[in-house]
Amino acid sequence: MSIERYDIVIVGAGPVGLLLSTCLARWGYKIKHIDMRPVPTVTGRADGIQPRSLDLLRNMGLKRAIMANEPAKVFEVAFWDPKEDAKGIHRTGTWPSCPKFIDARYPFTTLLHQGLIERVFIDDLQKNGVKIQRPWRITGFNTDAVDKQYPVEVSISHVDGDEQETIRAKYLFSGEGARSFVREQLKVGITHKDPIAHVWGVMDGVVRTDFPDIKMKCTIHSDAGSIMVIPREANMVRLYIQIASSTDPDWDPRKTATTEQVQETAKKIMAPYYIEWDRVEWYSVYPIGQGIADRYTLDERVFMGGDCCHTHSPKAGQGMNTAFLDAQNLAWKIHHVESGFADRSILKSYESERKLIAENLLNFDAQYAKLFSQRQPSAGEIGHVSKSAQDQGQAEQHEDNDFIKTFKASCEFTSGYGVAYNENIFNWSENHPAKSPLFLSEKAGTTTQRPGRILTPATVTRVADANVVHLEQEIPLNGSYRLYLFGGKPSVTKRAIVDFASGLKKKGSFYQTYTRSDSDKVNYHERHNPDSLFFTFNTIFNAQRPDIEVRALLPDILARYFDHVYADDIWDQRVPDAKAAAHAKMGLTEDEGGVVVVRPDGYVGCVVKLVEGSGTVDALNQYFSSFCTKSLGGVEKAQL
Amino acid sequence: MSIERYDIVIVGAGPVGLLLSTCLARWGYKIKHIDMRPVPTVTGRADGIQPRSLDLLRNMGLKRAIMANEPAKVFEVAFWDPKEDAKGIHRTGTWPSCPKFIDARYPFTTLLHQGLIERVFIDDLQKNGVKIQRPWRITGFNTDAVDKQYPVEVSISHVDGDEQETIRAKYLFSGEGARSFVREQLKVGITHKDPIAHVWGVMDGVVRTDFPDIKMKCTIHSDAGSIMVIPREANMVRLYIQIASSTDPDWDPRKTATTEQVQETAKKIMAPYYIEWDRVEWYSVYPIGQGIADRYTLDERVFMGGDCCHTHSPKAGQGMNTAFLDAQNLAWKIHHVESGFADRSILKSYESERKLIAENLLNFDAQYAKLFSQRQPSAGEIGHVSKSAQDQGQAEQHEDNDFIKTFKASCEFTSGYGVAYNENIFNWSENHPAKSPLFLSEKAGTTTQRPGRILTPATVTRVADANVVHLEQEIPLNGSYRLYLFGGKPSVTKRAIVDFASGLKKKGSFYQTYTRSDSDKVNYHERHNPDSLFFTFNTIFNAQRPDIEVRALLPDILARYFDHVYADDIWDQRVPDAKAAAHAKMGLTEDEGGVVVVRPDGYVGCVVKLVEGSGTVDALNQYFSSFCTKSLGGVEKAQL
Repeated sequence: MSIERYDIVIVGAGPVGLLLSTCLARWGYKIKHIDMRPVPTVTGRADGIQPRSLDLLRNMGLKRAIMANEPAKVFEVAFWDPKEDAKGIHRTGTWPSCPKFIDARYPFTTLLHQGLIERVFIDDLQKNGVKIQRPWRITGFNTDAVDKQYPVEVSISHVDGDEQETIRAKYLFSGEGARSFVREQLKVGITHKDPIAHVWGVMDGVVRTDFPDIKMKCTIHSDAGSIMVIPREANMVRLYIQIASSTDPDWDPRKTATTEQVQETAKKIMAPYYIEWDRVEWYSVYPIGQGIADRYTLDERVFMGGDCCHTHSPKAGQGMNTAFLDAQNLAWKIHHVESGFADRSILKSYESERKLIAENLLNFDAQYAKLFSQRQPSAGEIGHVSKSAQDQGQAEQHEDNDFIKTFKASCEFTSGYGVAYNENIFNWSENHPAKSPLFLSEKAGTTTQRPGRILTPATVTRVADANVVHLEQEIPLNGSYRLYLFGGKPSVTKRAIVDFASGLKKKGSFYQTYTRSDSDKVNYHERHNPDSLFFTFNTIFNAQRPDIEVRALLPDILARYFDHVYADDIWDQRVPDAKAAAHAKMGLTEDEGGVVVVRPDGYVGCVVKLVEGSGTVDALNQYFSSFCTKSLGGVEKAQL
Repeated sequence: MSIERYDIVIVGAGPVGLLLSTCLARWGYKIKHIDMRPVPTVTGRADGIQPRSLDLLRNMGLKRAIMANEPAKVFEVAFWDPKEDAKGIHRTGTWPSCPKFIDARYPFTTLLHQGLIERVFIDDLQKNGVKIQRPWRITGFNTDAVDKQYPVEVSISHVDGDEQETIRAKYLFSGEGARSFVREQLKVGITHKDPIAHVWGVMDGVVRTDFPDIKMKCTIHSDAGSIMVIPREANMVRLYIQIASSTDPDWDPRKTATTEQVQETAKKIMAPYYIEWDRVEWYSVYPIGQGIADRYTLDERVFMGGDCCHTHSPKAGQGMNTAFLDAQNLAWKIHHVESGFADRSILKSYESERKLIAENLLNFDAQYAKLFSQRQPSAGEIGHVSKSAQDQGQAEQHEDNDFIKTFKASCEFTSGYGVAYNENIFNWSENHPAKSPLFLSEKAGTTTQRPGRILTPATVTRVADANVVHLEQEIPLNGSYRLYLFGGKPSVTKRAIVDFASGLKKKGSFYQTYTRSDSDKVNYHERHNPDSLFFTFNTIFNAQRPDIEVRALLPDILARYFDHVYADDIWDQRVPDAKAAAHAKMGLTEDEGGVVVVRPDGYVGCVVKLVEGSGTVDALNQYFSSFCTKSLGGVEKAQL
């Protein structure tokens, strides 16, 4: 009997495994996905979707299904402390959960039971023919040279042990969580950043209370202990209670507490307010130490992600969100390698990009705790987008001190917008060896967009149907690079755009080199990928919508993206004086525009000047040459 | 065998029948719902959801399910006319579909096949245990005194005739469409407003074309004829082609045309652009004359609504939207009578309110056609909310001429925001007999809210969870009156609010008279109806959210609506200088506030000054006395 072959075997159907599986299933890969649990998460576990993750879920077309569960939304965090010279706690301040200095489309955290989130992915997987095989576990794996195309042999079995399978795959992914069989087998160590370990109690339930902030995220410190309050869907609330810490004199990592004990403690902490439980849905006590896996892969065939690679305190609500981004990062890279677009070497960047973020997360985790024990900054200190557009000019003028910088960074981090990948083959800083002067940079003040960071959101009018749309969402997460041609004023850029189109059409250009092999069979209504599966063009003009005649302004190769042409004619409170707000937000000149290259995951790759002649496409050829399989536009492959 | 009894028998499962059924099923009524068709609408029929209807669907919690179908959205209408001295058509202008002078939450039309809309309702009905009985028809009915509680006897049968049922009900509703058995049996005549009849061809399909506005709503006039273009979900487009008119010399109401003939005509009209069909999903030719039923009910037991009562040209896309509002209007009135809250006489207002709207619709229909043949107004003429907040002060300053007035009225009408019920028991103008000086009015300049018109939307911050919310959506369509207590500045209104609460608590007040009989068993987490099924209070303060301590600022009876307390602290582009935008939009003073009474369907009932002493509650007692079953607050029932 011949052995069954898969593109990938995914172990674990938590957030990281499900997001990876969902992406690859949509892109046509053959997947074996197993999970040890007989059913999806029933109670407990992670529950916070950060603003940036909600962007991602929307980009995958899953936001509506998430929101159909009527999750709680956290817009503010409240701080409660003991009163001086009095009994009980009082509110000492509130912070926005995602303050206005962060340009977030959804400035709130979405709170929902993890099982409900998992089901959204599972439903989507089913549409693509993937069913999670449960309750099955991995029992062994081996990377060998027996089958070069499918080098990984994986053994799996029913948890009862009465059924086994051996299969082969191109890749194996472990999303097993903190106790990962794969990680143990690979003998990948865990480095502990913070020497302090904690035992946490977490309780989900429905309560009655006169505590006024029960529907907000709160940190409550009192002489009786500390609690974190997290509101949830369906009138539920989650309480985190620290039960023990390795700094305690009688530290015992196996220390525990009953539901009743924790409830009694909560009552004492929250006095003079009362709290009673209608029901407890879930209660668990678990020790958590900060830890980070030393490697995310050894051979770029067996990968790990999510809790398997990083564990930390649950307080900042980052676990699931980091897991989502791990999976997203790996998905498009595997896709680009397997579809022949990119060098296999790009898979090394999964670990380098994502391990850095996990390290930042762990550092942040420690800082965050410290921040909470300090004073809170005033609104004036942090500089905010004021409610009146007129005041806007005055905001963010002052110099930030260290405390404020830390505060801002922590907000960016918890919102998910703080993710910043270092420079590498994908993220071109001004230091990149291909030192073309056409690459714009934040340092030089020629763009606000920073390679390795998320594209700034912008609202524009779609020309085809006059719909007001969110530009950053116009291309779904489909594995394509997103090329934003900010066309400035058509009268100014006419020649440059014609030259740009000519450059694209030239043999050997990045665009011509990776056209679809089935381009003659492409559906007439295909919006995103008419010519190439790896690129989609968006063109944004500094003009009013009715003045944009797509087929008159754009050469055919760009006009083919008829549904991706936009008028930059929507006023934006953040750039109140701009005539073309999207251009202004990108830091491009409103007349001359520029080209912003965005990776399939929404992070900026590079920003290039839009010039007459061949320069712009030459620069893009250089950029893509650094990781594509073929040399482009006659340029040599740039080396890092 | 005893005869089965229902609260209502609903005939027809189109938009009007389904919305009525959905409301009443949610409110616990026993429903027999039948439809002649074996399945929901498969192709064709209505497809446009106007902005106001989308508000309504959201208020019913159905918007997300509608939007999951990825409908087309029309933001603009384009006009195409013959070129002078040249062949073919050219664009002569565009109008916003719902211009900015209308304060709409969703300034676009949502286009979706009627069958998909029907399924959203059918799914919701199933959750409440109602299944449409298909394919069954009504064969007879009779209102008698045999059973006073269930005075309507209805006979229904399977369309094959091999099964029959006779049932009794409190009400019978016909949503049968233009050919209504019930209307015929009642011998209710149809009055034709516009003597001109038309034969329309309508074709839904997927096309290929280089016509640039194929994804916008367009009216195209050419020497070869006229077409209306309506974009649809899934790359579809609907074309309306007028085939014949009773003004034609060879008028024949049975004139028809084949698919191919209509396609040939369309090609000629759209030259120099090409158009080809990938497929035609639906094609139909039908004669339409304007008509309106003389009565909507004879005895307030047998009611009719939707196409059964009004037919008109499909061009303005009003049929389904008017049907929705017919059903909504009737639903809460039946509920208020059957639950013992309101006099049976209120049912008369269904016909008086809804027939007026249908008459306006028919008048509008004729005007609309005329408008399309005239010039379009310039943006300067109509006065719009400009994209820059700074310009805002200048907008809408000039005097409107008749042409502009007609244009504005037509936009209001097609958006659904033009619906204005006349003064009656529910809609108290300053002419109302209970001439308390506390009733505020637009005429006196003491409020912008007009009884009989929809509440102006406003964005506020919910105090309990700091969520930024749409105030007009905070109470779902649940049969409750929505009392908006605009509390102004807490320091100014402290006394008035305490007095208001005392008034509510007084025996005989509107609020005390209609408390829940099961109030001791009400769920602790009940947000909307803790005390009464007929009233929900919203309190909005001119204050920053963290400064609002609900239980300190509000007496218990109001603090119980803990989730309905709001901070009026969100800046609004439409009132850029206001400190409290929601207060300002309602036309109330930002310090003193006022009480806006909104009917369960979202239309304003009256606006009352918030004063110290008993005056405010006295005024509300007068208002509710005019239609409630009991006399309130010692006042005599006000008479119209």
